[in-house]
Amino acid sequence: MSTMHSARLLITCADRPGIVQAVSSFLYHHGANITALDQYATEATGGTYFMRVEFGLDRLHDAIDVIRRAFGETVATQYDMEWTMTLVRDVKKVGILVSKFDHALLELLWRWSRGLLPCEITQVVSNHEDLRESVERFGVPFTVIPVTKTNKVEAEQQIQQQMAGNDLLVLARYMQILSEDFVSQWHHRIINIHHSFLPAFVGADPYRQAYDKGVKLIGATAHYVTADLDQGPIIEQAVERVSHRYSVTDLRELGQDVERNVLARAVRWHLEDRVIVHGNKTIVFD
Amino acid sequence: MSTMHSARLLITCADRPGIVQAVSSFLYHHGANITALDQYATEATGGTYFMRVEFGLDRLHDAIDVIRRAFGETVATQYDMEWTMTLVRDVKKVGILVSKFDHALLELLWRWSRGLLPCEITQVVSNHEDLRESVERFGVPFTVIPVTKTNKVEAEQQIQQQMAGNDLLVLARYMQILSEDFVSQWHHRIINIHHSFLPAFVGADPYRQAYDKGVKLIGATAHYVTADLDQGPIIEQAVERVSHRYSVTDLRELGQDVERNVLARAVRWHLEDRVIVHGNKTIVFD
Amino acid sequence: MSTMHSARLLITCADRPGIVQAVSSFLYHHGANITALDQYATEATGGTYFMRVEFGLDRLHDAIDVIRRAFGETVATQYDMEWTMTLVRDVKKVGILVSKFDHALLELLWRWSRGLLPCEITQVVSNHEDLRESVERFGVPFTVIPVTKTNKVEAEQQIQQQMAGNDLLVLARYMQILSEDFVSQWHHRIINIHHSFLPAFVGADPYRQAYDKGVKLIGATAHYVTADLDQGPIIEQAVERVSHRYSVTDLRELGQDVERNVLARAVRWHLEDRVIVHGNKTIVFD
Amino acid sequence: MSTMHSARLLITCADRPGIVQAVSSFLYHHGANITALDQYATEATGGTYFMRVEFGLDRLHDAIDVIRRAFGETVATQYDMEWTMTLVRDVKKVGILVSKFDHALLELLWRWSRGLLPCEITQVVSNHEDLRESVERFGVPFTVIPVTKTNKVEAEQQIQQQMAGNDLLVLARYMQILSEDFVSQWHHRIINIHHSFLPAFVGADPYRQAYDKGVKLIGATAHYVTADLDQGPIIEQAVERVSHRYSVTDLRELGQDVERNVLARAVRWHLEDRVIVHGNKTIVFD
Repeated sequence: MSTMHSARLLITCADRPGIVQAVSSFLYHHGANITALDQYATEATGGTYFMRVEFGLDRLHDAIDVIRRAFGETVATQYDMEWTMTLVRDVKKVGILVSKFDHALLELLWRWSRGLLPCEITQVVSNHEDLRESVERFGVPFTVIPVTKTNKVEAEQQIQQQMAGNDLLVLARYMQILSEDFVSQWHHRIINIHHSFLPAFVGADPYRQAYDKGVKLIGATAHYVTADLDQGPIIEQAVERVSHRYSVTDLRELGQDVERNVLARAVRWHLEDRVIVHGNKTIVFD
Repeated sequence: MSTMHSARLLITCADRPGIVQAVSSFLYHHGANITALDQYATEATGGTYFMRVEFGLDRLHDAIDVIRRAFGETVATQYDMEWTMTLVRDVKKVGILVSKFDHALLELLWRWSRGLLPCEITQVVSNHEDLRESVERFGVPFTVIPVTKTNKVEAEQQIQQQMAGNDLLVLARYMQILSEDFVSQWHHRIINIHHSFLPAFVGADPYRQAYDKGVKLIGATAHYVTADLDQGPIIEQAVERVSHRYSVTDLRELGQDVERNVLARAVRWHLEDRVIVHGNKTIVFD
Repeated sequence: MSTMHSARLLITCADRPGIVQAVSSFLYHHGANITALDQYATEATGGTYFMRVEFGLDRLHDAIDVIRRAFGETVATQYDMEWTMTLVRDVKKVGILVSKFDHALLELLWRWSRGLLPCEITQVVSNHEDLRESVERFGVPFTVIPVTKTNKVEAEQQIQQQMAGNDLLVLARYMQILSEDFVSQWHHRIINIHHSFLPAFVGADPYRQAYDKGVKLIGATAHYVTADLDQGPIIEQAVERVSHRYSVTDLRELGQDVERNVLARAVRWHLEDRVIVHGNKTIVFD
Repeated sequence: MSTMHSARLLITCADRPGIVQAVSSFLYHHGANITALDQYATEATGGTYFMRVEFGLDRLHDAIDVIRRAFGETVATQYDMEWTMTLVRDVKKVGILVSKFDHALLELLWRWSRGLLPCEITQVVSNHEDLRESVERFGVPFTVIPVTKTNKVEAEQQIQQQMAGNDLLVLARYMQILSEDFVSQWHHRIINIHHSFLPAFVGADPYRQAYDKGVKLIGATAHYVTADLDQGPIIEQAVERVSHRYSVTDLRELGQDVERNVLARAVRWHLEDRVIVHGNKTIVFD
């Protein structure tokens, strides 16, 4: 239902009576037609309140900036809200970081090229040369920034420069750990795909860990990156059944299919402003 | 989040700007605190609009009847709504019809006895004696109304009398076909479990049909009963994987697990006022 | 576990005592080491028996042709078997037919390019020009054979010529109906992906049909093509949950993901000699 | 396909050429008709080999004891096998341990009462009185053995005495930790249901842990009990999707459905001799 002529309002605030009324009245009186509305409160009363509204712009009485300012000065102030109001036509800019595995990257590029990911993929940065051709044939610039034991700081600075101006970074199996400093500059704006059902199998080679443990399901987890490795807020997870017959290679092959789908869903939800982070958890209005 | 001190408002109307504002303002000004709100429109503009609101009664300014009347005379009239406003504490009365299979029946009784189905199961009617003990040990009255080729009309009249006063009938594998006349008196208030993924395998012995066809998934469908056999609005469906190794008996065994879960979910959603029928389809605010 | 130095034996025969013993003794005495063995009988006794054996060639006493002949003259004759013995290193040749949708095609090409589909994709034939670039960048020849109302016979003859020499044809959303004559020349060697959970929604535009019916799951079915449209033996099926919120376009988008996975699995199983057709059903030793 | 007139042979040994041939020849020459056969090897060559054979007894030339002895003295010795040969008609005796939650227990009792669990449930032991009526109405003896901080040793001795003679113990949410000594006397003969997708959320209150972590799937794990708490070989696992809307109570409710199914499948597979433990992992010939 979301069209180029619509906007999205995301709200977090302390739960109090009257929020829906206040928000919907504000929008109604400014000529905004609500086309989708989701809300959630952590407690029956006294908890935290979250809201996602999508509204049409066609009959808006004022420019969106006027409305945004008015909302900030009235309803948002009255209820002490954290909030964002974004236009669907302000397409988000996305940079992708990748190493050598291409499955997650290609899934994103392929969906994007078909119009299934509402964003502009501005560039792909890798610490290896391998995937240049795969990326460039989609018309997306590909930059190699090698990372060694001794150049980590410089490499991150280069990535920072290269990625400046993007709204979102996606780690599509980028095998380098980003520094706390880097991560803090992209607060809840980096999505990573981890190749296990977190919190099981944090750390290296989760398919090997899963094999050794003899689990009967393998999974993948898309999450926002925080300073704590593999501990950021989970956006999406999925699993597939396996059996004793699966070698580590088989687990990896099947797992990569799960990774592709999980990452694509998480990125899409983020781009559609469906995800609100609350503490170390996410509200996903899917 | 739904408590005994809350109510639910279900709305269907032509989509127009201002509905959320009108409904939420009405509730706010009557002291009702919205605790859940879902909406859906069939088209971006000009379609049909559906809304489910759950609100707390604790600070209500008036008796619920006053509010109900006021809503009917103002907002509901203004927007020409079909609507219901129900109190969670007005627990729905449910009668179950069953033949000889006990799996779907026992799942309902067991969930109900644990407090997981918010209703009063008033009685079970069967055309066979077999399940009396299973039912009565839950403290639920069990009545046998035999159905033969010659007494169909009388049997239905007896069922009608017996079930009068219930809000919902559940066919938990009741193997008799109810007449158009009977069904019309329980408009969208009879839920049936069909043992296949409809519209595949309508009619008799769907597990045999599935076996003969060699499908790789079997399923179950919970739907409202209409005059058209197996064609009523679908509430819920699920499937499980099978293989060539499954005999008809194996399919039936596994399928019964699917039936149990699908029926239990559909009944629960109906009891929680989460289902709106629109034409031959359902809106399920789950 | 299957390596280039192994072979696969597929057997169908009337069930009788001693088959496993006869087959395994034959292989043992010819120096073949069984690495995988599956069997299935339709009845406890007196049914049809199916077997799939994978065995290593490293210690084979004779050339595979000698062994094949010997098996045919002894065990296979004794038990009146239908059977095939194929070498893993004799990679199957696959031709793909496609129209304008690229999702199923690209999934196959991408898996193949990563070594996940054990075959040689020899060519792609389409009735439209659209996908040339997508195909050719994988180094696979792309041929357009237009189909009009008046040239159906000639077009099929051209396809026949073009595809001659392949072991398998895959219809990766090829929107033309193949003639009975064509199909009969590729007996159980054409795999089609149908975009519904068959037997629900046969025929045109199944996502529209699914939308109109209001189903809560959509699916896809990979099957061998027979003269009866959409009625051939089912190899694989899968579904995904949907809700009233899905437009026909949404169903199509999600459904295409299901199609990709279902077709890829079915083709892989065929290539690995895991599928035996029996009547209108399949035995899949996965 | 398994009937009362059949037996099952489970084998573990070092992988060598000729095992299938040796086993199937032995059975054939003793008049045993193989009705099911599964095998698995951990490596292409040189690994560990596992086999499960089901065979009919109708035409057996000798008593099963004669055949069992002969197998032990010939094939089993030759290949240095660990093996068991069990008759389907020697129905396994099962004792259940439970505390206060009834969902897993009732699922087992209900399936057993319908003939879906091939065993004799001899008794239920609990550390609480609560579930007596639920158990006794299935005609199964119910014994309370209270466990306190000071009587743990005596309580376990009582359980040991009470359960003596059973082939399998099932912990259907038994909330006491069994001692290493107790566990060692039931080596791979105790099945526990853990209410999480292990190895995520070991230890107490996994639904609370899952809630705090914000996972998008919750699961359950059935495993053999070993001295390491929650670390024994996994037999079966399953998950269900959840969202931010699930309270801890909601997770528990949904999770209990998963627990019921996972435990029932694991117990059934054990009873049908489908599970072989290898190190800390299981081979499940399902």
